[in-house]
This record gives sequence, structure tokens and C-alpha cells, in this order.
Amino acid sequence: MTVDWGRGGPDLLVAVDRDAGPLRTQIQDQLRAAIRDQRLGAGERLPSTRRLAELLEVARGTVVDVYEQLLAEGYLESTVGSGTRVAAIGSSGGSARRAPVVVSAPSSPRPVDFEYGIPDLRSVPLSDWSWAVSKATQTLPTAALGDEDLAGSRNLREVVTAYHRRVRAGWATAEDAIIVSGFRQGLAFALATLARQGIPRIALEDPGPRDHALIARRAGLEAVPVPVDDHGLDVGRLRRSGARAVLLTPAHQCPTGVVLGPSRRRDLIAWADEVDGVILEDDYDAEFRYDRQPVGSLQGLNPARVIALGSVSKTLAPTIRLGWVFAPPRFAAGIVEEKRLSSRGAPGLDQEALALLMETGRFDRHLRRVREIYRTRRDLLAAEVEHAFGPGRLRGLAAGCHALLHLPDGSSERGVAAAAETMGVRVNPLSHYRFVTEDGRAAPLGFPPALVLGFGNVDEQQLRRGIRILARAAERHAGPARERE
Amino acid sequence: MTVDWGRGGPDLLVAVDRDAGPLRTQIQDQLRAAIRDQRLGAGERLPSTRRLAELLEVARGTVVDVYEQLLAEGYLESTVGSGTRVAAIGSSGGSARRAPVVVSAPSSPRPVDFEYGIPDLRSVPLSDWSWAVSKATQTLPTAALGDEDLAGSRNLREVVTAYHRRVRAGWATAEDAIIVSGFRQGLAFALATLARQGIPRIALEDPGPRDHALIARRAGLEAVPVPVDDHGLDVGRLRRSGARAVLLTPAHQCPTGVVLGPSRRRDLIAWADEVDGVILEDDYDAEFRYDRQPVGSLQGLNPARVIALGSVSKTLAPTIRLGWVFAPPRFAAGIVEEKRLSSRGAPGLDQEALALLMETGRFDRHLRRVREIYRTRRDLLAAEVEHAFGPGRLRGLAAGCHALLHLPDGSSERGVAAAAETMGVRVNPLSHYRFVTEDGRAAPLGFPPALVLGFGNVDEQQLRRGIRILARAAERHAGPARERE
Repeated sequence: MTVDWGRGGPDLLVAVDRDAGPLRTQIQDQLRAAIRDQRLGAGERLPSTRRLAELLEVARGTVVDVYEQLLAEGYLESTVGSGTRVAAIGSSGGSARRAPVVVSAPSSPRPVDFEYGIPDLRSVPLSDWSWAVSKATQTLPTAALGDEDLAGSRNLREVVTAYHRRVRAGWATAEDAIIVSGFRQGLAFALATLARQGIPRIALEDPGPRDHALIARRAGLEAVPVPVDDHGLDVGRLRRSGARAVLLTPAHQCPTGVVLGPSRRRDLIAWADEVDGVILEDDYDAEFRYDRQPVGSLQGLNPARVIALGSVSKTLAPTIRLGWVFAPPRFAAGIVEEKRLSSRGAPGLDQEALALLMETGRFDRHLRRVREIYRTRRDLLAAEVEHAFGPGRLRGLAAGCHALLHLPDGSSERGVAAAAETMGVRVNPLSHYRFVTEDGRAAPLGFPPALVLGFGNVDEQQLRRGIRILARAAERHAGPARERE
Repeated sequence: MTVDWGRGGPDLLVAVDRDAGPLRTQIQDQLRAAIRDQRLGAGERLPSTRRLAELLEVARGTVVDVYEQLLAEGYLESTVGSGTRVAAIGSSGGSARRAPVVVSAPSSPRPVDFEYGIPDLRSVPLSDWSWAVSKATQTLPTAALGDEDLAGSRNLREVVTAYHRRVRAGWATAEDAIIVSGFRQGLAFALATLARQGIPRIALEDPGPRDHALIARRAGLEAVPVPVDDHGLDVGRLRRSGARAVLLTPAHQCPTGVVLGPSRRRDLIAWADEVDGVILEDDYDAEFRYDRQPVGSLQGLNPARVIALGSVSKTLAPTIRLGWVFAPPRFAAGIVEEKRLSSRGAPGLDQEALALLMETGRFDRHLRRVREIYRTRRDLLAAEVEHAFGPGRLRGLAAGCHALLHLPDGSSERGVAAAAETMGVRVNPLSHYRFVTEDGRAAPLGFPPALVLGFGNVDEQQLRRGIRILARAAERHAGPARERE
């Protein structure tokens, strides 16, 4: 279609509204849109600036500006003797509106969500955080607003190192610490560094946290499963795996809740020395141990062989996105280089804010407060499960915010979880955490059927209702297994 | 050495101070330290809990707790009939203190730093930021403190999309936007996604931003250089490179300051359509254009072929660490998956804070304010350079916060930069930005000798002094080139 510019044509394309902001912008935006939508096709000749100015009753200079802008942007082209024409900007230039990409479905509100790994979100110390950021804007040196120290804020590295020594019996200095934006980022950097240093294979706990095999493969490593039993990772099997690296959750195994036993800890350290290996310690849930003082970090036991990873996702909130890595010198520089090339790391004001929370005792106060909340929930969970399922069904309650609920023998995990979902309770079966091989297969698990109950973000009322519903769901799916997991 | 526990031995290892906090912690920490330092060697038998309690004059229960803790942590082991002994925890267990890893040298204060890419750090709107974070802690829904929408805050995606459309003439919806922690993270995700989709090679501007070739190689891509001339990237050379992807800085080329010319823009878009290619647009410095309205983003010209990357590192401050990617649907899901597996992205409160700054007009107000500061500096730079070096020596002043200073023919870039450094002025020669091949070689550049002057974070007094010093340095290193760049 050729536009007849002489007889009101432009009104179809450009409608100037004198009360709606700069005329130049209006004309420009509308011409651009018309070109994109191919209402003005490639090769179409535009009227002279004088003519269009007359038609639109605007100053000629305005139209000159518009044409120059669109020429500079490539929407128009101008050749001597031929006037100004619409340029060919490619048929894929936006005229066909694209379907929206659904990258994550919004979760509909659920009455009870036993998803593992979410802390009590109503307890997040938001006013403390706000105070700390405000303070950080006053105290952070101006130069630190530019490119920061690549390993992260020196101040925060000092503070988390002191915390790691004091609370986790760690053995590190601020020189060993690298600040990252949460556990996953630290893991990705550490794995990439192992791959670069010629460590081709990593052993992972089975069952274990989701996605770790995938993350390891993306970093260029082969991932192999090592089973977890009642004392944690089976070190004998690790020894036979041929791996020189292992990633594990010794303080409170995810998802079984098992604490790595003392002799396993020693065996593991001995293994690392024997094979010139490295242990990646996901120092997870260690802050919340109910029956006794937490077991110290493996890192403290053998700093030269352990890369320890921690974060505040479980202690403050996932959305804070701050964590740390303590790495032996032979890995630290590589991890910092990964950080430099892939993101430059975490926001400086947030780092300073976290340091302030930890230095001023607010972080510890928060931990004491939520520990009591979790202890109450844990005790309630134990009582409710005993009431609904009978004694001895829970495992992994010594620490953290999740536990394993053993279903009656022969129950179908997936059947129970699916039935619960129809009654408004979201819960993952243990098999959800099985190691998945590269071709998508999962090895059979040495555990009886079970559900993983995260109770960090479930209040007492939800917890009572949730367990009652799970008991009903379990009744329906008791008896002989009707599926092959 | 065997410790004689009977005669004051433990005092060498454990000195209890009744005014220094919990006795249990003191004893525990000191025993741990002694085991790590091998003052207590592997196999060493510890006294009975009763005996140690007597020696230290503490309650026996305290010592029982300590032993149990250290047993659980693997420092001690206990066998029936043999009492409690020190476990073998590996010879590398921390007794030899390690040298600190120097991961980034602290930069000594420099009177004048023409480093490119740092905005005016004294103008960062810190009180606005503090206000916005505080507001975000009040407005962010509780659920958003947990795992966020993986593409990033919906609210921020809406806001940056509106900004991109309004200020950058972009053509995207919030569905196309992914929030990242700055440009580099967005780049790393986009490159990894290209590699996964079977695009093996990417063309990079030469000269161009540092590290991009290295980052591309780490993502699994081959990087090839394409020269930049007075009109920006040479699209003819791009065509002959065989690459189907290109990364460039069209709004203000880094480091030459050239703006990609209108016909080049059209050629580039046509190339992308011809080769089924993809353009990575580093939409950098576009906010600061002095002579006229900024040229719109390439993304707006061909949304199906352009991945646009932006951040607030130059507009607010690098330390905020927030950026965005606008990606066509066929890449968006891959980029979100990279984000999910490698870091989960940016802090939720910060995302909300940035959305608030942009929505309330504070961001625009800040931009107007700093644009005037940069305009003044730019005009001063032009005047000072003309005074010191004569006319026509500067290029790339139409936009942004850096420019290219052409040195007299035959000058040694590196010599001038080194001489300036001895006089307290830090500046990078243009050759610093040359494309470097995998084996470390750099191709010769088609530019005369030049220095890259970043003036974003240099105040007027520093700027005057800096240019005078550069002129002195250039005088010393004029004449025939004494080096092969």
C-alpha cells in the first residue's frame, strides 16, 4: 500500500496530540511503529519535511529532527535525488507479535507447602535490613561504589570468616573467603575451577539436592552418584567411584536429614588426602541444630582439602542472595577469576549491610529467634506425625528445617504426594531427589518410601492440617506398590 | 611428644579463663587448635573426662560435652577398652599456615584516573537508594522473599521494558526481559545459550571491551575479531568472518567512541537476516548523548534478531549490580535456565528498589543531573585537549563518558601511558583494547596511536591537571615509534 500523503494520509500514521508531550517524540514514535508494523513498507517515499510539517501543523525543524533521528536509527534512508524513503529493516522486524515466553509459571496460592529449603519468610528481619542498607550508604567509601575488590567486600570477608570460625569451628582467614551471590553461584564457580584444574569427575550424594548433577555437567565435569545411608555419605562407595572430588551436605543431609557420622567424617578426610582430592562442603542448615551444639564444619578439620560453601538463604532469606566460599589457596584464585569473568559478584551495599547485621549482633539475635520458631514447629511436627502415622516414622529432625517422613512399606510415594496435592498440600516424594544420569535415568534408592517435609515456612496451623491431609493421602495409597519408581 | 596429663600438662593445651565466656567453648576451641597444630598428635590418648574435669576444675559434664562434640566432629575417636584418642585428621590439616592469596591488589590512591567505564561515584544517589530499599522492604510481598520468578522481579521487568521502549526506542514486552546482576552476567548467560543452540562462533569488535574474547571462549564459543573504523563495526568484514553472532557497542563504541552509522545499522540487520544470525547489543553509554537525542537501540529495529543487554553500572553505580537482557523467545528460555542453574539471579529487594527509582522519576532526575556534569567535563576536556595538543585530536565525544585522544603520529602509546603513570596519571593506551587471540597475540590496529580517556569519575580540577601531564608525557614520547605495538 502506498500512502497518499496529500490527503490526510499521515493522520492514519501520525496523530499529533498537543497535550501529550513533545511533538517530536510523538511523531517519531508513531513513524517508527508504522515502519515496524509495515503500515509504511520498505521503499515507501516520505513527504518532504516541509510538506509533513504543513500537514501536521508543526514547525519544520521538528520534522527535520524526526527524519534525522530515524535516519540515524536505520528506519529511513536518504539518497540524493530520491528523497527520504523507508528502509528495509528485515521481515522479522517485529511486525508479527511474538507469543510470550512462559519462563516460570506463577504459583497459585497453596494452603500448605512443604517445599524444602524455604525459611520462615514472615520472620525475615526486614527492618534490620533496611537499617543496615541505610547505614551502608553512609559508611561505604565512595571508591567502593566502583569496581570492588574482586573477592568481595573486605569487611564482609572478615566478618563471615569470624562467623565461620566462631559458629562453624572453621579454620580460615579473610584471604580464603570469596563473596558470592548465594550457594549456587559459589558452587558453579568452584566446579568450573575444578574442571579447569583437570579434575574430571565429581561424586554427588544420592539422594541429594536437585540439579546438582546438571550443574556439574554444565561446568564440564562427569557426575557420579554415591549412596547415602543412615550415617550419611557411604565413603567406601566414594572410594570406589574413582572421583577425586565430592559435594556433600554433612551437617544435615539434603534431603534425608542424616548427620554425617564421626567415623565417616574421618574416613572422608582420609580419602581426600589419599586421592589428592577435594571436598565441597555445602554447609547447610548447620545453624539450626536442636538436640545439641552443631557439629563443626569439615572445612575446619582439613582446610587444605575442603571448599566450604555457605549462604544466608536459609538464615535470612533466599532473596538476599549473598553467600561465601572458603577455598584453599590452589582454588581461590581460580574461583575469583570465574567470578570476575562471569558477573563481578554481589552488590556492594548489600555486602556491607550483611557485614553490619553480623557485626552488630542483629544476625545472631535473628538466628536465636527463628531457632525457637523452628524448634516449636519441629516438636509439633513430631507430635502430629506420631499421632497420625504412629511412632518412629520421622528421620532427620536433629537439625534444620526439613525431615523425612517414612511412609508405610509398600506405599507409593508419588501416589501419596499426588493425592495430597489434590487436597491442597504440596510435598515432594524422596524420589524427587534421586540422582539422575545424563540420559535421564535414576538409580533405585536404598530407602523405604518417604516424603520430604520442609517445615521452615509452614506455620503451626498449616502444619497440623498438612499432616492430617498427608495421613489421609497415605491411607489411600498404602498397600502394595502400584508403581515402579 | 606424649603429653603428661598428670602434671600440669593440660595447661599447655587448655587454659581456662573463668571470665572469658562459656568454659565448654574455651576447652573445646583449645583442644581443637591443639589437634590441628599437632601439639596433640594422632593417636594421643586423652585423659578420662573425670580426670580432665579435676585438672581443669570444671564440672565433669562440661568435659563430657566437649569430648562428645569433638568425637562428632571427627577430632577424637573412641574405642571400647581404649579410651578417647586423638583422631588422624590428615597431615594437611591446617598446621602449616598458608600464605594469603592475593586475589586483587588494593589500588593505591591516584591523583587522576582516566580508567574507562566508571561513572561519577560522588553523584551516586545513595539517599534515593536507601529510601527505595526501605520502601521495598515495606511493599515486597512476603512470598517474594523466597524463590523469585526466575526471570526476575515482574515489577522490575515491566519497568525496564517501559524504559527500554521510551528511552531506547526498544521493542519488547516484560516477557522478553530477564533481570541479571549486571552486563557481564547477562553476557555470560547469552553466550552460553548461543553455544548450547549450536552457534559456534562470535564476532567481536576490534578494538573492543577487554575480556570479551576470553568470556566467549569460556562459554564454549570461538571468538573472531572484526575491525572497527570511523563508522563503527565493519559489516563487510563481519560478513566474511563466517560468524552467525556478533557482539557490539553501537551507541558509543568501546573504546573508540564511534557511533555505528545509519547504513551500517541497516547492513548489520540485513546480515543477521541473511545468515539466520543474532546480534548481541551492548547498549552502553546510550543515556549520555550530548549533541542530539540518542540513537535508538538496534533491538527496536529487529527484535527477533537482537539480544539487548543493559545495566545501571554506568547510570547509577557498578556496585548496584543490576542489569537486564531483552531476548527473542528462542533464546529467552535458555538464558533463564542458565540463570537458574548458575546463580538464581539478583537480590529481590534491590530489584524492587530499582523499579521504585525508575517508576517515581528519581532515576530520570539523576540522569539529567549527571548528564549535565558529564557535559561540563566533556566540554572542559575538549578545551583542555585543544589547548594542550592542538585541534582535532579527540574522537568519540558525541556521547558517553570516554573519548579517544589521538597522539601525534609516531608517538608510543605505551610510552606515553607509562610516563604519565610516573606523574600520577593513570590512562590506558588504545592497544589495551585490542582483540587478543587464544595464543595471546594481538592483531595490528588500523588506528593511529591514541589514549582512551574515561572522564566519568574525574573532577574538573583533576581533568585539567591530567591533560597537562599527558601533554608533558606525550612530548617525551613523540617522534618515531620506538616499539612495535
